[in-house]
Amino acid sequence: MVEGNKTIKEIPSSHYKISEIYTVNPNEFSVENVHITHVSPTELKKISFLQNPKDSVAVCELREAKTLPHFSTQLILDGIQDPGNLGTIIRLADWFGIEQIICSEDTVDFYNPKVIQASMGSFLRVNIVYEDIHAYLQNSSSAIIGTDMDGKNLYQYSFPEKFSLVLGNEGNGIRPKTEELLTDKITIPRFGKSRATESLNVSMATGIILGQIFSEK
Amino acid sequence: MVEGNKTIKEIPSSHYKISEIYTVNPNEFSVENVHITHVSPTELKKISFLQNPKDSVAVCELREAKTLPHFSTQLILDGIQDPGNLGTIIRLADWFGIEQIICSEDTVDFYNPKVIQASMGSFLRVNIVYEDIHAYLQNSSSAIIGTDMDGKNLYQYSFPEKFSLVLGNEGNGIRPKTEELLTDKITIPRFGKSRATESLNVSMATGIILGQIFSEK
Repeated sequence: MVEGNKTIKEIPSSHYKISEIYTVNPNEFSVENVHITHVSPTELKKISFLQNPKDSVAVCELREAKTLPHFSTQLILDGIQDPGNLGTIIRLADWFGIEQIICSEDTVDFYNPKVIQASMGSFLRVNIVYEDIHAYLQNSSSAIIGTDMDGKNLYQYSFPEKFSLVLGNEGNGIRPKTEELLTDKITIPRFGKSRATESLNVSMATGIILGQIFSEK
Repeated sequence: MVEGNKTIKEIPSSHYKISEIYTVNPNEFSVENVHITHVSPTELKKISFLQNPKDSVAVCELREAKTLPHFSTQLILDGIQDPGNLGTIIRLADWFGIEQIICSEDTVDFYNPKVIQASMGSFLRVNIVYEDIHAYLQNSSSAIIGTDMDGKNLYQYSFPEKFSLVLGNEGNGIRPKTEELLTDKITIPRFGKSRATESLNVSMATGIILGQIFSEK
Protein backbone atom coordinates (compact mmCIF):
# COMPACT_ATOMS: atom_id res chain seq x y z
CA MET A 1 0.00 0.00 0.00
CA VAL A 2 1.37 3.36 -1.04
CA GLU A 3 -0.13 6.62 0.22
CA GLY A 4 -0.14 10.09 -1.31
CA ASN A 5 -0.55 11.28 -4.92
CA LYS A 6 3.07 12.38 -5.22
CA THR A 7 4.53 8.92 -4.61
CA ILE A 8 1.68 7.09 -6.39
CA LYS A 9 2.38 9.06 -9.58
CA GLU A 10 5.99 7.83 -9.52
CA ILE A 11 4.97 4.15 -9.47
CA PRO A 12 4.27 3.65 -13.22
CA SER A 13 7.88 4.57 -14.05
CA SER A 14 9.23 2.04 -11.52
CA HIS A 15 9.36 -1.79 -11.42
CA TYR A 16 6.11 -1.85 -9.41
CA LYS A 17 2.59 -2.19 -10.76
CA ILE A 18 -0.51 -0.52 -9.32
CA SER A 19 -3.57 -2.73 -9.10
CA GLU A 20 -6.07 -0.32 -7.49
CA ILE A 21 -6.35 3.31 -6.45
CA TYR A 22 -8.71 4.76 -3.82
CA THR A 23 -8.79 8.53 -4.07
CA VAL A 24 -10.76 11.60 -3.01
CA ASN A 25 -9.96 13.17 -6.36
CA PRO A 26 -10.15 10.69 -9.31
CA ASN A 27 -9.32 13.44 -11.84
CA GLU A 28 -5.74 13.36 -10.59
CA PHE A 29 -5.12 10.00 -12.25
CA SER A 30 -5.07 8.69 -15.79
CA VAL A 31 -3.36 5.34 -15.32
CA GLU A 32 -4.27 2.62 -17.81
CA ASN A 33 -5.62 -0.75 -16.65
CA VAL A 34 -5.95 0.44 -13.07
CA HIS A 35 -9.23 0.35 -11.22
CA ILE A 36 -9.82 3.77 -9.63
CA THR A 37 -12.41 4.16 -6.86
CA HIS A 38 -13.71 7.54 -5.78
CA VAL A 39 -13.91 7.62 -1.95
CA SER A 40 -14.91 10.24 0.62
CA PRO A 41 -12.32 11.63 3.09
CA THR A 42 -14.03 9.56 5.83
CA GLU A 43 -13.70 6.36 3.78
CA LEU A 44 -10.06 7.18 3.00
CA LYS A 45 -9.39 7.58 6.71
CA LYS A 46 -10.67 4.04 7.26
CA ILE A 47 -8.43 2.60 4.51
CA SER A 48 -5.31 4.59 5.38
CA PHE A 49 -2.62 3.62 7.90
CA LEU A 50 -1.87 7.30 8.56
CA GLN A 51 -3.38 9.37 11.35
CA ASN A 52 -3.87 12.18 8.86
CA PRO A 53 -4.36 10.43 5.53
CA LYS A 54 -3.37 12.18 2.35
CA ASP A 55 -5.36 12.31 -0.88
CA SER A 56 -5.09 8.73 -2.15
CA VAL A 57 -4.07 5.18 -1.39
CA ALA A 58 -2.76 2.77 -4.03
CA VAL A 59 -2.64 -1.01 -3.73
CA CYS A 60 0.34 -2.42 -5.60
CA GLU A 61 1.41 -5.88 -6.63
CA LEU A 62 4.24 -7.31 -4.55
CA ARG A 63 7.38 -7.80 -6.54
CA GLU A 64 9.64 -10.78 -6.50
CA ALA A 65 12.98 -9.15 -5.87
CA LYS A 66 16.19 -10.68 -7.10
CA THR A 67 19.68 -9.94 -5.83
CA LEU A 68 21.55 -7.86 -8.38
CA PRO A 69 25.23 -8.44 -9.08
CA HIS A 70 27.08 -6.15 -6.70
CA PHE A 71 28.63 -2.95 -8.07
CA SER A 72 30.47 -0.44 -5.91
CA THR A 73 28.73 0.17 -2.53
CA GLN A 74 25.77 -1.81 -1.18
CA LEU A 75 24.14 -1.99 2.25
CA ILE A 76 23.58 -5.13 4.34
CA LEU A 77 21.08 -4.79 7.22
CA ASP A 78 21.51 -7.24 10.08
CA GLY A 79 18.21 -7.24 11.97
CA ILE A 80 17.03 -3.60 11.78
CA GLN A 81 13.70 -3.57 13.66
CA ASP A 82 12.36 -0.03 13.57
CA PRO A 83 10.27 0.79 10.47
CA GLY A 84 11.32 4.47 10.63
CA ASN A 85 15.00 3.49 10.58
CA LEU A 86 14.55 1.18 7.59
CA GLY A 87 12.57 3.86 5.72
CA THR A 88 15.24 6.47 6.45
CA ILE A 89 18.04 4.12 5.31
CA ILE A 90 16.19 3.42 2.03
CA ARG A 91 15.84 7.19 1.51
CA LEU A 92 19.58 7.66 2.16
CA ALA A 93 20.46 4.87 -0.28
CA ASP A 94 18.37 6.60 -2.94
CA TRP A 95 20.03 9.98 -2.21
CA PHE A 96 23.52 8.53 -2.54
CA GLY A 97 22.65 6.39 -5.56
CA ILE A 98 23.15 3.04 -3.82
CA GLU A 99 21.31 0.47 -5.90
CA GLN A 100 20.86 -2.40 -3.48
CA ILE A 101 20.03 -3.14 0.16
CA ILE A 102 20.25 -6.76 1.31
CA CYS A 103 18.26 -7.38 4.51
CA SER A 104 18.59 -10.30 6.91
CA GLU A 105 15.43 -12.35 7.04
CA ASP A 106 14.53 -10.91 10.48
CA THR A 107 14.82 -7.28 9.36
CA VAL A 108 11.48 -5.43 9.50
CA ASP A 109 9.40 -6.00 6.33
CA PHE A 110 9.91 -3.12 3.93
CA TYR A 111 6.31 -3.50 2.74
CA ASN A 112 5.26 -2.37 6.26
CA PRO A 113 3.26 0.85 5.60
CA LYS A 114 5.43 2.80 8.07
CA VAL A 115 8.57 1.87 6.13
CA ILE A 116 6.99 2.77 2.78
CA GLN A 117 5.87 6.10 4.30
CA ALA A 118 9.27 6.93 5.85
CA SER A 119 11.07 6.08 2.61
CA MET A 120 9.17 8.87 0.80
CA GLY A 121 8.97 7.01 -2.52
CA SER A 122 12.63 5.94 -2.40
CA PHE A 123 11.68 2.25 -2.18
CA LEU A 124 10.74 2.56 -5.86
CA ARG A 125 14.37 3.23 -6.83
CA VAL A 126 16.41 0.89 -4.61
CA ASN A 127 16.52 -2.90 -5.02
CA ILE A 128 15.61 -4.33 -1.59
CA VAL A 129 15.97 -8.07 -1.04
CA TYR A 130 15.67 -10.38 1.98
CA GLU A 131 18.26 -13.12 2.19
CA ASP A 132 20.26 -15.31 4.50
CA ILE A 133 22.96 -12.63 4.81
CA HIS A 134 25.37 -15.04 6.48
CA ALA A 135 25.35 -17.34 3.43
CA TYR A 136 25.45 -14.32 1.11
CA LEU A 137 28.46 -12.75 2.83
CA GLN A 138 30.31 -16.07 2.99
CA ASN A 139 30.24 -16.14 -0.80
CA SER A 140 31.18 -12.47 -1.16
CA SER A 141 34.51 -11.75 -2.83
CA SER A 142 34.56 -8.01 -1.96
CA ALA A 143 35.30 -6.23 1.34
CA ILE A 144 32.70 -6.42 4.14
CA ILE A 145 32.83 -3.38 6.41
CA GLY A 146 30.80 -3.10 9.61
CA THR A 147 30.24 -0.44 12.26
CA ASP A 148 31.61 -1.07 15.74
CA MET A 149 32.32 0.96 18.88
CA ASP A 150 35.99 0.02 18.67
CA GLY A 151 36.57 0.17 14.93
CA LYS A 152 38.94 2.29 12.86
CA ASN A 153 38.30 6.03 12.76
CA LEU A 154 35.88 6.71 9.89
CA TYR A 155 37.71 9.92 9.02
CA GLN A 156 41.06 8.21 8.61
CA TYR A 157 39.67 5.20 6.80
CA SER A 158 40.18 4.70 3.10
CA PHE A 159 37.25 2.79 1.61
CA PRO A 160 37.95 0.22 -1.11
CA GLU A 161 36.41 0.53 -4.58
CA LYS A 162 33.79 -2.11 -3.95
CA PHE A 163 32.35 -3.18 -0.59
CA SER A 164 29.31 -4.11 1.46
CA LEU A 165 28.53 -1.86 4.44
CA VAL A 166 26.91 -3.85 7.27
CA LEU A 167 24.59 -2.11 9.76
CA GLY A 168 23.32 -3.85 12.87
CA ASN A 169 20.25 -4.04 15.05
CA GLU A 170 19.25 -0.94 17.09
CA GLY A 171 19.89 -2.49 20.50
CA ASN A 172 22.35 -5.29 19.86
CA GLY A 173 24.37 -4.16 16.85
CA ILE A 174 25.77 -6.66 14.36
CA ARG A 175 25.29 -10.26 15.52
CA PRO A 176 28.47 -12.24 16.32
CA LYS A 177 27.93 -14.69 13.45
CA THR A 178 27.91 -11.76 10.99
CA GLU A 179 30.74 -9.98 12.77
CA GLU A 180 33.05 -12.94 12.12
CA LEU A 181 32.71 -12.30 8.40
CA LEU A 182 33.68 -8.61 8.52
CA THR A 183 36.92 -7.72 6.79
CA ASP A 184 37.10 -4.36 8.61
CA LYS A 185 35.33 -2.34 11.34
CA ILE A 186 34.81 1.42 11.43
CA THR A 187 33.64 3.90 14.11
CA ILE A 188 32.28 7.43 13.95
CA PRO A 189 34.44 9.24 16.52
CA ARG A 190 32.63 11.16 19.25
CA PHE A 191 33.91 14.73 19.67
CA GLY A 192 31.79 15.60 22.73
CA LYS A 193 33.56 14.91 26.02
CA SER A 194 30.77 13.29 28.04
CA ARG A 195 30.76 9.52 28.30
CA ALA A 196 27.04 9.68 29.06
CA THR A 197 26.31 10.64 25.44
CA GLU A 198 24.22 7.91 23.78
CA SER A 199 25.66 6.41 20.63
CA LEU A 200 24.07 7.65 17.42
CA ASN A 201 20.91 6.06 16.08
CA VAL A 202 21.61 3.52 13.29
CA SER A 203 19.97 5.57 10.53
CA MET A 204 21.92 8.70 11.55
CA ALA A 205 25.15 6.67 11.67
CA THR A 206 24.36 5.38 8.15
CA GLY A 207 23.86 8.96 6.92
CA ILE A 208 27.15 10.18 8.39
CA ILE A 209 29.11 7.19 7.04
CA LEU A 210 27.59 7.47 3.55
CA GLY A 211 28.28 11.22 3.64
CA GLN A 212 31.92 10.44 4.33
CA ILE A 213 32.18 7.68 1.69
CA PHE A 214 30.77 9.96 -0.99
CA SER A 215 32.93 12.91 0.05
CA GLU A 216 35.79 10.96 -1.53
CA LYS A 217 34.01 10.43 -4.84
CA MET B 1 9.65 16.44 32.78
CA VAL B 2 12.36 13.87 32.24
CA GLU B 3 11.57 10.16 31.86
CA GLY B 4 13.70 7.10 32.56
CA ASN B 5 16.19 6.30 35.35
CA LYS B 6 19.20 6.49 33.06
CA THR B 7 18.67 10.14 32.09
CA ILE B 8 17.30 11.15 35.51
CA LYS B 9 20.51 9.96 37.17
CA GLU B 10 22.54 12.27 34.92
CA ILE B 11 20.62 15.39 36.01
CA PRO B 12 22.45 16.09 39.32
CA SER B 13 25.74 16.51 37.44
CA SER B 14 24.17 19.01 35.00
CA HIS B 15 22.92 22.63 35.34
CA TYR B 16 19.39 21.34 36.01
CA LYS B 17 17.76 20.68 39.36
CA ILE B 18 15.26 17.92 40.10
CA SER B 19 12.32 18.96 42.24
CA GLU B 20 10.33 15.70 42.38
CA ILE B 21 10.64 12.07 41.31
CA TYR B 22 7.79 9.61 40.73
CA THR B 23 9.11 6.09 40.48
CA VAL B 24 8.08 2.44 40.58
CA ASN B 25 11.36 1.66 42.36
CA PRO B 26 12.36 4.28 45.00
CA ASN B 27 15.48 2.30 45.99
CA GLU B 28 17.04 3.39 42.70
CA PHE B 29 17.48 6.96 43.96
CA SER B 30 19.41 8.65 46.74
CA VAL B 31 19.17 12.30 45.69
CA GLU B 32 19.29 14.85 48.49
CA ASN B 33 16.52 17.41 48.94
CA VAL B 34 14.32 15.74 46.34
CA HIS B 35 10.84 14.53 47.12
CA ILE B 36 10.53 10.92 45.91
CA THR B 37 7.07 9.36 45.50
CA HIS B 38 6.58 5.63 45.10
CA VAL B 39 3.95 5.00 42.40
CA SER B 40 2.45 1.88 40.80
CA PRO B 41 3.03 1.13 37.10
CA THR B 42 -0.60 2.15 36.45
CA GLU B 43 -0.07 5.52 38.17
CA LEU B 44 3.18 6.03 36.24
CA LYS B 45 1.32 5.41 33.01
CA LYS B 46 -1.06 8.26 33.89
CA ILE B 47 1.79 10.67 34.64
CA SER B 48 4.00 9.72 31.68
CA PHE B 49 3.85 11.18 28.18
CA LEU B 50 5.13 7.90 26.72
CA GLN B 51 2.95 5.11 25.38
CA ASN B 52 5.14 2.63 27.20
CA PRO B 53 6.44 4.53 30.23
CA LYS B 54 9.79 3.61 31.70
CA ASP B 55 10.60 3.25 35.40
CA SER B 56 10.44 6.86 36.63
CA VAL B 57 9.47 10.42 35.82
CA ALA B 58 11.33 13.45 37.25
CA VAL B 59 9.99 16.98 37.42
CA CYS B 60 12.80 19.51 37.04
CA GLU B 61 13.05 23.26 37.53
CA LEU B 62 13.11 25.24 34.31
CA ARG B 63 16.42 26.98 33.78
CA GLU B 64 16.93 30.52 32.62
CA ALA B 65 19.34 30.00 29.76
CA LYS B 66 21.83 32.67 28.74
CA THR B 67 23.60 32.93 25.41
CA LEU B 68 27.25 31.91 25.79
CA PRO B 69 30.00 33.76 23.96
CA HIS B 70 30.43 31.92 20.67
CA PHE B 71 33.43 29.61 20.26
CA SER B 72 34.08 27.57 17.12
CA THR B 73 30.86 25.99 15.70
CA GLN B 74 27.33 26.70 16.91
CA LEU B 75 23.91 25.90 15.44
CA ILE B 76 21.12 28.37 14.69
CA LEU B 77 17.65 26.88 14.14
CA ASP B 78 15.24 28.94 12.07
CA GLY B 79 11.77 27.62 12.85
CA ILE B 80 12.29 23.87 13.29
CA GLN B 81 8.81 22.51 14.09
CA ASP B 82 9.11 18.76 14.59
CA PRO B 83 10.00 17.70 18.17
CA GLY B 84 11.80 14.58 16.88
CA ASN B 85 14.01 16.70 14.62
CA LEU B 86 14.91 19.11 17.43
CA GLY B 87 15.69 16.20 19.78
CA THR B 88 17.87 14.54 17.14
CA ILE B 89 19.74 17.79 16.43
CA ILE B 90 20.43 18.26 20.18
CA ARG B 91 21.75 14.69 20.30
CA LEU B 92 24.01 15.38 17.30
CA ALA B 93 25.32 18.59 18.90
CA ASP B 94 26.22 16.63 22.03
CA TRP B 95 27.96 13.92 19.96
CA PHE B 96 30.08 16.44 18.08
CA GLY B 97 30.79 18.55 21.17
CA ILE B 98 28.88 21.63 19.96
CA GLU B 99 28.16 23.71 23.05
CA GLN B 100 25.33 25.93 21.90
CA ILE B 101 22.12 25.90 19.86
CA ILE B 102 20.32 29.20 19.33
CA CYS B 103 16.67 28.73 18.35
CA SER B 104 14.36 31.27 16.74
CA GLU B 105 11.46 32.13 19.00
CA ASP B 106 9.06 30.06 16.84
CA THR B 107 11.17 26.89 17.01
CA VAL B 108 9.41 24.05 18.89
CA ASP B 109 9.92 24.31 22.68
CA PHE B 110 12.78 22.08 23.75
CA TYR B 111 11.00 21.41 27.05
CA ASN B 112 8.34 19.57 24.99
CA PRO B 113 8.47 15.99 26.38
CA LYS B 114 8.94 14.56 22.87
CA VAL B 115 12.05 16.70 22.37
CA ILE B 116 13.48 15.75 25.77
CA GLN B 117 12.81 12.09 24.95
CA ALA B 118 14.35 12.23 21.46
CA SER B 119 17.43 14.03 22.78
CA MET B 120 18.25 11.01 25.04
CA GLY B 121 19.71 13.13 27.84
CA SER B 122 21.76 15.30 25.49
CA PHE B 123 19.75 18.44 26.41
CA LEU B 124 21.66 18.31 29.73
CA ARG B 125 24.96 18.98 27.97
CA VAL B 126 24.12 21.54 25.27
CA ASN B 127 23.23 25.19 25.99
CA ILE B 128 19.90 25.78 24.23
CA VAL B 129 18.55 29.34 24.05
CA TYR B 130 15.60 31.02 22.33
CA GLU B 131 16.31 34.41 20.79
CA ASP B 132 15.44 36.82 18.05
CA ILE B 133 17.94 35.14 15.71
CA HIS B 134 17.69 37.98 13.17
CA ALA B 135 18.93 40.52 15.75
CA TYR B 136 21.52 38.03 17.01
CA LEU B 137 22.94 37.30 13.55
CA GLN B 138 23.00 41.00 12.63
CA ASN B 139 25.43 41.51 15.50
CA SER B 140 27.51 38.43 14.66
CA SER B 141 31.08 39.04 13.61
CA SER B 142 31.77 35.47 12.46
CA ALA B 143 30.68 33.61 9.33
CA ILE B 144 27.01 32.58 8.97
CA ILE B 145 26.60 29.48 6.80
CA GLY B 146 23.22 28.15 5.74
CA THR B 147 21.96 25.13 3.82
CA ASP B 148 20.39 25.73 0.43
CA MET B 149 19.43 23.67 -2.64
CA ASP B 150 21.77 25.78 -4.78
CA GLY B 151 24.68 26.30 -2.40
CA LYS B 152 28.34 25.34 -2.71
CA ASN B 153 29.20 21.63 -2.70
CA LEU B 154 29.66 20.59 0.95
CA TYR B 155 32.52 18.29 -0.01
CA GLN B 156 34.50 21.02 -1.73
CA TYR B 157 33.79 23.63 0.93
CA SER B 158 36.41 24.74 3.39
CA PHE B 159 34.78 25.77 6.68
CA PRO B 160 36.20 28.78 8.56
CA GLU B 161 37.56 28.42 12.12
CA LYS B 162 34.48 29.95 13.70
CA PHE B 163 30.96 30.05 12.29
CA SER B 164 27.24 29.66 12.89
CA LEU B 165 25.48 26.91 10.93
CA VAL B 166 21.87 27.89 10.14
CA LEU B 167 19.23 25.19 9.61
CA GLY B 168 15.75 26.02 8.37
CA ASN B 169 12.17 24.89 8.81
CA GLU B 170 11.17 21.41 7.57
CA GLY B 171 8.85 22.63 4.82
CA ASN B 172 10.02 26.13 4.01
CA GLY B 173 13.73 26.13 4.76
CA ILE B 174 15.52 29.24 6.00
CA ARG B 175 13.24 32.29 5.92
CA PRO B 176 14.22 35.09 3.48
CA LYS B 177 14.95 37.58 6.30
CA THR B 178 17.51 35.15 7.76
CA GLU B 179 18.84 34.16 4.33
CA GLU B 180 19.85 37.77 3.66
CA LEU B 181 22.30 37.56 6.56
CA LEU B 182 24.08 34.39 5.36
CA THR B 183 27.71 34.83 4.38
CA ASP B 184 27.71 31.51 2.50
CA LYS B 185 25.38 28.70 1.38
CA ILE B 186 26.19 25.00 1.18
CA THR B 187 24.46 21.96 -0.36
CA ILE B 188 24.78 18.22 0.22
CA PRO B 189 25.14 16.91 -3.34
CA ARG B 190 22.75 14.16 -4.41
CA PHE B 191 24.49 11.17 -6.02
CA GLY B 192 21.33 9.29 -7.00
CA LYS B 193 20.16 10.08 -10.52
CA SER B 194 16.42 10.41 -9.98
CA ARG B 195 14.99 13.90 -9.71
CA ALA B 196 12.03 12.47 -7.82
CA THR B 197 14.22 11.79 -4.76
CA GLU B 198 13.02 13.89 -1.82
CA SER B 199 15.58 16.19 -0.23
CA LEU B 200 17.01 14.90 3.03
CA ASN B 201 15.24 15.54 6.31
CA VAL B 202 16.72 18.51 8.23
CA SER B 203 18.10 16.40 11.10
CA MET B 204 19.76 13.97 8.67
CA ALA B 205 21.21 16.90 6.70
CA THR B 206 22.57 18.31 9.99
CA GLY B 207 24.23 14.96 10.79
CA ILE B 208 25.87 14.69 7.37
CA ILE B 209 27.10 18.31 7.46
CA LEU B 210 28.49 17.99 11.01
CA GLY B 211 30.11 14.69 10.04
CA GLN B 212 31.86 16.51 7.21
CA ILE B 213 32.90 19.53 9.33
CA PHE B 214 34.44 17.29 11.96
CA SER B 215 36.18 15.08 9.39
CA GLU B 216 38.53 18.04 8.91
CA LYS B 217 39.30 18.42 12.63
